[in-house]
Amino acid sequence: MSEKIYVGVDLGGTTIKTGICNEQGRLMHTFEGPTGAENGSDFVLEKIADYVRKLVSDSSYNWEQVAGIGLGIPGFMDIPEGFIKLSPNLGWRNVPVKQILEEKLNKAVAIDNDANVAALGEAWSGAGAGIPNVVCYTLGTGVGGGIIIKSRIYQGFKGMAGELGHMAVVPDLEAIKCGCGKMGCLETVSSATGIIRMANDAVKRGDVTSLADVAQIAAKDVFDAAKAGDEVSLRIIDRAALYLGKSMALLAVVINPQRFILGGGVSRAGDILFQPIRDYFRQFTQEAAQEQVDIVPAQLGNDAGVVGAAGLNLH
Amino acid sequence: MSEKIYVGVDLGGTTIKTGICNEQGRLMHTFEGPTGAENGSDFVLEKIADYVRKLVSDSSYNWEQVAGIGLGIPGFMDIPEGFIKLSPNLGWRNVPVKQILEEKLNKAVAIDNDANVAALGEAWSGAGAGIPNVVCYTLGTGVGGGIIIKSRIYQGFKGMAGELGHMAVVPDLEAIKCGCGKMGCLETVSSATGIIRMANDAVKRGDVTSLADVAQIAAKDVFDAAKAGDEVSLRIIDRAALYLGKSMALLAVVINPQRFILGGGVSRAGDILFQPIRDYFRQFTQEAAQEQVDIVPAQLGNDAGVVGAAGLNLH
Repeated sequence: MSEKIYVGVDLGGTTIKTGICNEQGRLMHTFEGPTGAENGSDFVLEKIADYVRKLVSDSSYNWEQVAGIGLGIPGFMDIPEGFIKLSPNLGWRNVPVKQILEEKLNKAVAIDNDANVAALGEAWSGAGAGIPNVVCYTLGTGVGGGIIIKSRIYQGFKGMAGELGHMAVVPDLEAIKCGCGKMGCLETVSSATGIIRMANDAVKRGDVTSLADVAQIAAKDVFDAAKAGDEVSLRIIDRAALYLGKSMALLAVVINPQRFILGGGVSRAGDILFQPIRDYFRQFTQEAAQEQVDIVPAQLGNDAGVVGAAGLNLH
Repeated sequence: MSEKIYVGVDLGGTTIKTGICNEQGRLMHTFEGPTGAENGSDFVLEKIADYVRKLVSDSSYNWEQVAGIGLGIPGFMDIPEGFIKLSPNLGWRNVPVKQILEEKLNKAVAIDNDANVAALGEAWSGAGAGIPNVVCYTLGTGVGGGIIIKSRIYQGFKGMAGELGHMAVVPDLEAIKCGCGKMGCLETVSSATGIIRMANDAVKRGDVTSLADVAQIAAKDVFDAAKAGDEVSLRIIDRAALYLGKSMALLAVVINPQRFILGGGVSRAGDILFQPIRDYFRQFTQEAAQEQVDIVPAQLGNDAGVVGAAGLNLH
């Protein structure tokens, strides 16, 4: 019998990325095209079907080998039912994605949110390969998360497990309101948005910093300034690392993962971010819960979403 | 074929409780006797074997029906290996409990820590019956915890999952050092010990409180005084409830359980404790992560340990 293949779709607001993974989670062939989100969900779903058919027909595999198709989608969804409740990025409300695509493609279709599939991708064939229990953070505009238990995404009761960006770890005196409506969420500090906010606050306050010369501060500017020795930028990164480390110390006694994986744009800052995170994690975590636990960068980069989406039909 | 039965052993420092559960987790027959911990581990393990044989022979069941024997033990252990690393309550170090008891009894033996088995007991046939994902707190001298995922105890990488008493939720300004060596652990505030400490501090400070007339304050005195309207006692209970509610808000976005179950002596205070916990949980938890989630008292009381221990061999 010929090898099974798994198709993954990373559905973004502007681009649809598709890919074929082999049984080891290695990305063998890819195809991408525009989303055309402005044309509505029927149009986008037809595009997805087209791209997936093209992906497979242009590859060295055949359609019969496709064991299933998975999609990573930004937004709120009923995962078992494969139903999008709301995706602000796509402008979708109440779209039965699984049902529509299964009819179009006549293959099993599974969906999950983008942070969860990125976590599954890293766990399958990235920085968590071979490790059954990992926690992944995606540090971007917000802070996304995914918890992998026994090599599968852990969803919880209503699919809210792994919403690590909404752990309220910032104490009242420093806390600001999060987009979710609650106070002190991790992502108010440790996301690109949080870092930029702290930088703009420092400049407005008149702190002595090279950031004052930057027209529109990006997270990368803060890391670059910190690497050049800017004290204010170092302090901002220290805050971002502090609350990441504190959230990991909590996770260590709650789910005791073997490895933490950090991906997303902010994680590319490298050691200047990872070192203080590791230091704070060691400082705040119970000895037995940090034993043999490590904190590592993601490995798959932008492919994590496609690989993880492909992995949704693994079991 | 005759019905399977499950034997549970709740091994305490002074008493060994044993019981037989049927396949539904109902406690059908019990027996208990002294531990005799002062005579060392060989003696205690022989006692356990005696008690278990007597338990079954005095019941309406026979030895062939015993599907397995489980033990809940206070201390640190290698759960898969069934090996006690250290139990301060029993005075044990490096005792291969599983191996010794399997040789004595010729049945499968499984062990876990006392907070985890209490959680499994409640999940099997107590306040969590029929609910696959629950989190249990045991509020006693310390704060124990157990996380049940798909009706099984979730251990994590090194068995440190569910150590809820060591979630660092108390902010720096109020934090004191925990017995574990870290600062601000939940159990420094929300255990009986924490409540008594806050009460003694208030009396020493000269706060106006009826607790000043109590010779040796117990947690129950604080709850009784609060019920009688003592402001200081109400404030202390509010602190205990605040940090329990904050820990639950964190757990809601990390593992999104369907139900929180609170057991242990402190939980018997009833609504005066549960109502502020529920209020704080609602206040601090993301809407989607608190949807249809409830917070309820444990139902099995002191039987939870025996029932949960029996359940260790269920799967």
